[in-house]
Amino acid sequence: MIIRVLVSVFLLLSVLNLVPEAKGEEGMYPMSELEKLDLQAAGLELDPELIYNPNGLSLVDGICKIGGCTGSFVSDQGLMLTNHHCAFRAIRDASSAEDDFLHQGFSALTQADEVPAVGYTVRITDSYRDVSSEVLSAVISDMSPEDRTRAIEKKMKELSLAEEEVKPGKRAEVSEMFLGKTYVLFTYTYLKDVRLVFAPPLAIGNFGGEEDNWMWPRHSGDFSFMRAYVGPDGKPADYSPDNIPYSPKVVLEVGSNGVAEDDFVFIFGYPGTTYRHRSAAFLKYLSEQYMPTVVDWYGWQIDNLVASAQGDRSRELALAARVKGLQNTYKNYRGKLQGISRLDLLTTRENEETNLKKFIANDPELTKNYSKVLPGLDDYYHQRAETIGFDLWLGYMLRSSETMSAALTVWENSIEKNKSETDREWAYMERNLDQTLNSLVIKAQTFDPQADALIMGELLMRAENINQAAALAGVSDMVGSSGSKKADKFLDRAFKKSSLMKDETLLEVMEMDTEQLRDLNDPFLDLVAELYPPYLELREENKRHKGQLDQLQASLQDLKKLYQGQDFVPDANGTLRLTYGRIEGYSPRDAIEMVPLTTLEGILEKDTGVKPFNVPDRFKELVLEGDFGPFLSKEMGGVPVNMLYSTDTTGGNSGSPVLNATGQVVGLNFDRAWEATINDFAWDHSYSRSIGVDIRYVLWVTWKYGQADRLLREMKVDF
Amino acid sequence: MIIRVLVSVFLLLSVLNLVPEAKGEEGMYPMSELEKLDLQAAGLELDPELIYNPNGLSLVDGICKIGGCTGSFVSDQGLMLTNHHCAFRAIRDASSAEDDFLHQGFSALTQADEVPAVGYTVRITDSYRDVSSEVLSAVISDMSPEDRTRAIEKKMKELSLAEEEVKPGKRAEVSEMFLGKTYVLFTYTYLKDVRLVFAPPLAIGNFGGEEDNWMWPRHSGDFSFMRAYVGPDGKPADYSPDNIPYSPKVVLEVGSNGVAEDDFVFIFGYPGTTYRHRSAAFLKYLSEQYMPTVVDWYGWQIDNLVASAQGDRSRELALAARVKGLQNTYKNYRGKLQGISRLDLLTTRENEETNLKKFIANDPELTKNYSKVLPGLDDYYHQRAETIGFDLWLGYMLRSSETMSAALTVWENSIEKNKSETDREWAYMERNLDQTLNSLVIKAQTFDPQADALIMGELLMRAENINQAAALAGVSDMVGSSGSKKADKFLDRAFKKSSLMKDETLLEVMEMDTEQLRDLNDPFLDLVAELYPPYLELREENKRHKGQLDQLQASLQDLKKLYQGQDFVPDANGTLRLTYGRIEGYSPRDAIEMVPLTTLEGILEKDTGVKPFNVPDRFKELVLEGDFGPFLSKEMGGVPVNMLYSTDTTGGNSGSPVLNATGQVVGLNFDRAWEATINDFAWDHSYSRSIGVDIRYVLWVTWKYGQADRLLREMKVDF
Repeated sequence: MIIRVLVSVFLLLSVLNLVPEAKGEEGMYPMSELEKLDLQAAGLELDPELIYNPNGLSLVDGICKIGGCTGSFVSDQGLMLTNHHCAFRAIRDASSAEDDFLHQGFSALTQADEVPAVGYTVRITDSYRDVSSEVLSAVISDMSPEDRTRAIEKKMKELSLAEEEVKPGKRAEVSEMFLGKTYVLFTYTYLKDVRLVFAPPLAIGNFGGEEDNWMWPRHSGDFSFMRAYVGPDGKPADYSPDNIPYSPKVVLEVGSNGVAEDDFVFIFGYPGTTYRHRSAAFLKYLSEQYMPTVVDWYGWQIDNLVASAQGDRSRELALAARVKGLQNTYKNYRGKLQGISRLDLLTTRENEETNLKKFIANDPELTKNYSKVLPGLDDYYHQRAETIGFDLWLGYMLRSSETMSAALTVWENSIEKNKSETDREWAYMERNLDQTLNSLVIKAQTFDPQADALIMGELLMRAENINQAAALAGVSDMVGSSGSKKADKFLDRAFKKSSLMKDETLLEVMEMDTEQLRDLNDPFLDLVAELYPPYLELREENKRHKGQLDQLQASLQDLKKLYQGQDFVPDANGTLRLTYGRIEGYSPRDAIEMVPLTTLEGILEKDTGVKPFNVPDRFKELVLEGDFGPFLSKEMGGVPVNMLYSTDTTGGNSGSPVLNATGQVVGLNFDRAWEATINDFAWDHSYSRSIGVDIRYVLWVTWKYGQADRLLREMKVDF
Repeated sequence: MIIRVLVSVFLLLSVLNLVPEAKGEEGMYPMSELEKLDLQAAGLELDPELIYNPNGLSLVDGICKIGGCTGSFVSDQGLMLTNHHCAFRAIRDASSAEDDFLHQGFSALTQADEVPAVGYTVRITDSYRDVSSEVLSAVISDMSPEDRTRAIEKKMKELSLAEEEVKPGKRAEVSEMFLGKTYVLFTYTYLKDVRLVFAPPLAIGNFGGEEDNWMWPRHSGDFSFMRAYVGPDGKPADYSPDNIPYSPKVVLEVGSNGVAEDDFVFIFGYPGTTYRHRSAAFLKYLSEQYMPTVVDWYGWQIDNLVASAQGDRSRELALAARVKGLQNTYKNYRGKLQGISRLDLLTTRENEETNLKKFIANDPELTKNYSKVLPGLDDYYHQRAETIGFDLWLGYMLRSSETMSAALTVWENSIEKNKSETDREWAYMERNLDQTLNSLVIKAQTFDPQADALIMGELLMRAENINQAAALAGVSDMVGSSGSKKADKFLDRAFKKSSLMKDETLLEVMEMDTEQLRDLNDPFLDLVAELYPPYLELREENKRHKGQLDQLQASLQDLKKLYQGQDFVPDANGTLRLTYGRIEGYSPRDAIEMVPLTTLEGILEKDTGVKPFNVPDRFKELVLEGDFGPFLSKEMGGVPVNMLYSTDTTGGNSGSPVLNATGQVVGLNFDRAWEATINDFAWDHSYSRSIGVDIRYVLWVTWKYGQADRLLREMKVDF
C-alpha cells in the first residue's frame, strides 16, 4: 500500500508541476567532456554509452558534417537528412530558368535520378585524441609570435599527415580547442560523392525567407534529403555513375511520434565558432569596429546585387546563394549588435575583469604571472583597431568579388606550390588542392561579371578613403581612381579581356608558375600581383597576431580557471559537440510568451500569396484536407511545424538532428531565435532558444506534398 | 465522509483546470437587459441588485459620463477617477510653455488649488424608460423619409423638454436604441463645474504614446483625478469659487488588493457606437469607401500639423489635443481595416445574408414582408457611395479647420434661432446653446491660424478633383483655385482680416442675425455663405437617408430576430451599458501568447530615454527602490501596471472603472488590443480584449511619484 501512496503523491506532484526538472543549460560539450555529464539526470532515457562510445558503435556514428552543416544518416543506404538551406547550392546548381527546382522543389523518383551535388563532401568523426603536448612541443621559449604560430601550424599538419599514413583512406585534422592551449587530432571518414535526393519548394523550405530568418514563431520546412555514395568497393571515391550508396555504421531511428512541450532533447553537431571566453577588449573591438564595418559592407552588397538582378531570373538564380549568405550574416550581426547593447554585455565582461584584477592584486604570485594579461589584450585590440579599415578593405577587395578571389587563389598557389607540403598554407596542401580547385570551378559555373564589376567598382571607390596610399600606389597607377571614371573603364576592359572565370582556364592556370601567370597579362592576375605584397604582409601579420593572442588568451584561460575554481567547456571550433535542453518557450518581452510548437494554421495565417509568405495552392489544399496520417498531434489537431528548445547551438549546427530521450530523430535544427543571435558571446536560459523543423512536418511534407513514399519506406517510417 | 471525497474530487478537478468557468462574452448590456443575465453564474459575488437597482441605490449611481468618456466617483467629495487622455484638454489648458503640466504632471495640493476644466461636464444616469411607442406615434404612414426623420427628431426633443419640465434641474435625453425601432428616455444629473485634481506627467500617463496605442503589451499610467463641484445649495451650477464638492449618491470602493489572472471583472460605461447589426452593404461601403478616405485625410493632417509645429513648444501644446485625436482615429481605422480584411468579415456577413435570403425565399409571407430589405440596403449604400467624395470633402471643408467650423456654427445659428425650440437642430436649441458656444470659445483659446491655413489650402486644392463644379462655382470665383496660387493669397488675406476666432467676437456674433453677419464682410463667414446651400442640401439629404435607413434597418432587425429565434442587445449608442469578462490573455498569432498583466520591469525594458518611451529618472529610482507598500503583487514581485480582460468595450468606455466580483474598482479601462479594434463590427472571445490600468499602479504612482497622500486618504486607501 505504501507504494500506491507514493505513486499517487508523485502523480499529484506531476499534476501540480512541482517535480524538479533539469532545464537546458549552457554547453557545447566535446565528446571528451561527456563523461563528466549526468545526462540521465537531465532526462536522457538511454545508457550514455549508447549515444557516445569511443570503443564501439553509438549514435554519434550516425552523425556527419555536410559542407559547413551537420547531417544525420537516416537509412542504411546512406540517406542523409539536413537543412534545405544546407542543400541550397546543390538545388540551385541542378536548376535552370526552365527547370527551377528552387521554385518547384526536387524529388528524385529513383536512386538513379539523384543529382550529384558538386563540391559537397561528407565527413564522419571516427575518433579523436588529445595531442596538445605534441603540438606545443614545437614551441621554443624565445620564439617570436609569428614563428610560434608557424611552428604550431606545421606541427598540426605533420600530425594529420602522419595519422593519415597510419589510417589510409581516412582524413585527419588537428583542431585547436582552447586558443594556444589544447589541440585534438580528429580522424574522419571523408566521402566525396554526395547527391541531392529531395527538397521541398523554396516557398516551403524557406517559408518566411529573410523576414522570418532568426525569428520565432517560425513555419519553415527547412529540410532536404541527400545521399552519400562510395565506390563499388565500398571505399570513398569521386563521383561515378558506378558508385553505390554508402552504408553508414549507424542509422538513426526517425521518431515519427515527435515531441511535446518539456520533453528532453539533445543535439549532436559541428557548431562553428563561439567567443564566450574572450576578453572585454575583444568584445569592444568586435562590436564597435569589426561588426559595424561588416554590416555596412554586406548591406551595400545585398541592396545592390538584388537590385542589379531584379527581373532576370537566370541572374537571380546565379546570385541566389551568394545573396542568401550575405543576408544571413547581415541579419545575424544586427541581432548580435542589438543583443550586446540590450544585455549591456560589455559592462558585464568589464565587471568580470575588474574582479579578476582584484583577485590578482591580492596575491604576489598571481600578480607576477597574470598582471600583464588583461592590459596585453587591451593593447592587442587597440593595435588591431588601428589597421582594421585597411585590413578589411584588402580582404574584401581580394574575396568579395569572385573574380578576384579566383585570381588570388591562382596566384598564391603558384607561389605556395614551391614549398614543402607542411610549409604550405592550408588550402594549397596537396591533400586540400582538389577541394580548393573544386570551389573555384563551382563559382565559375554561376559566374556573374556584372555583380563582380559592381562590387569591385565600389571597393575601388572606397579605397580613396583608406589611408594607405603607399601600399596602393601600384593599384592606383593601374586602375585609376573611381572618381575619374578610370576605375570603371579599367573594369570594363578587364572583364572583356579576362577569361579566368572558365572551368578550363582555371584548370590550366592552377598548373602554372608565377612567371607563366605574369605572361598571361590577365588584368585580374595583374591586379592581384599589385595587391600581393600588402596581402602577404597582412597574412604574416596575422600569424604574428595569432601568436600573441594565443599566449594571452591561454593565460586568461588559466587565470579564469584559478579564479572560478573550475574548468570550462572550450569555445565551438567546428568539431563534434553535444548540447541538451528541453522543448520550451520563452518570454522575449514583458507579457509576451512564446509557445514552443507552431502549427499548420500558423502557415495559413502568415500566407499572403506574396514571397516569402506564399505557400503553393496544393499545399493549402492538403492542409485543409487534413489527412495527417500518423504525423498528427492530437493535442494540436494537426501536424506541428517548427519547434523551439533550450539547447546551446550556433552556426554550423544547421542540419543537426534533434534527438529525444531515447535517441530518435524528432527534429532538424536550423536556426535560433532573435535574442539568441547573441549566443556566440553569452548563453542564458531566459532567451537562448534554438529552432528546428518538427520531424512530423518533414515526414508529412515528404509524403503528402512530395509524394516521395520511397523515402519514408527507406527510413522504415509507417504512414 | 462523502463530503470530503467530493471536496477532494473538486480540488483535483481544479488542479486539472477542468472546472467549467464562464468566459467573457459579447454584449454591451443596457440596464434594461440586465435582469435577463445570470451574472452570479458568470462570477459576480454580489446580489445583482447591489450593482443595479432602478428603485434604490446601487453601484451604477457611482458611475458618470465626463465629456466623451466615463468616470467613477471614488470619494464622498465628488472625486472622480478617469483616464489621463480624457483629462488631456484640461491639463493642456492649464499648461503653458513655462508651466507645462502635460510634461511635468499636475497635483493640486489642496482643493483650493484644483483648476477649472473649462468645457467639461459630468452626467450621471438617474433613470430611464422606454418611449418607443410615443416617439413612433409621430410617424404617419405615407411620410417621406426626410419628414419621418424630422418628425421623430421633433418628438424626441419634445419628450426631453417635457421630462425636464417635470424634473427641474435634471437633464433628459431620448436615445435611439435600435435604429428606427426603439427609443429610451434617460434622465441625468448634469454638473457643469468640473476641476482638474491630479495627473501624472505625459511620460507616465501616455507612456508608449502613439506607438503603443491600440497595442498590448502596454505600460501606460493613463489615469487622472478630477472633481465635480455644485453650488453652495448642492445644486448643479456653473463654475464659481464659492462652489462646494459634489456629494455623489454612491461612492465606489477602491480595491487596492487588485486582481489576478482569471478573475471575474465587469465594466459600467458609456460606449459610443458599434455596428454589429448592420448589413454587408454597409460594411463594404465603410471599408472600401468611407474609412480609406478618412485614413487618407487624417494621415495628411497628422503629418502636416506635426511638421508645422515642430520645435515650437507653444504651437505643439496648442495642437496637441487635435493631433492626438486625429492619431487615435487614424490608427484605430487602420486596425479596423486590417481586421475586416484579416477576418474576411465581409464574406461572413454576405454568407449570413445569403442564409437570410434563403430563409425568406422559403416562405411567401416572409417574402412579402422582407424580400426588399437587403436589396434596399444594397441600393442605399450604392447611392451613398456615389456622392461620398463630395459629401466628405464638404464636411472636412466646414469642420477640419477650426475657423470654418466656428463660422459655420455662427452662420447656422443665425438661421436656426428663428425657429421654435423643437424645430431647431440639436446644437442650436436654447438648452444646448451654452455648450455649443463654450466649445467655440475653448477652440478660440488655442487657435492656431497657421494650422488652419494649411488645412484649408489643401482642401481647396483637393476641391479641383471633385466633380461638383456647379455647387462650388461661387467658392471658385471667390477663392480661385490653389493651382493658380489664388487660394493661398485668399487665405493669407482672410486670416489677416478675420477677427472671428476671438472670445469676445464669438460672443458678439452669436447674437447676430444673418444680415448683420453679411455686413461684417468676414471672409470666412462669406465663404460659409457660399457653401451653405450645398451644406443645407446635404443636411436635408442626410435626414432623408436616415429616414430610409431607419426603416430598412428596423426591418432587417425584425427579420434577423425571426431567423435566429432570439433577441439581440442593441448596438452601443452612448448610453449606460454593462459588460463582463475575465482577466485573461490571448493569442494574436500562432505560438504567441499574451500574458494579461504587465510589470514595472516591462517599463524599464521599454524605456529608451526618448519620447514616447521616456519615464522620468525619479520614476526609475522609485521602481528600483522597491517600496511598493500594500500595492505589491507578491507573485509578480512588484506593482502590476496594465491589465487585459475579455469584456466588450468600444470608444466611450475610456475611463470606465473595471470592477471585481465584489464591486470594487480594480482598474481603469483605457484601450483595446490591436485585434480588438474590430470590436465595433464583431466581437470574438479569441481576440477581443480590452486594456486597463491596474488600480495598484494608479495608487502607487499617485502616492510615490505624485506624493498626493491626501487623495489616497480621501479614497480611504491604506498605504
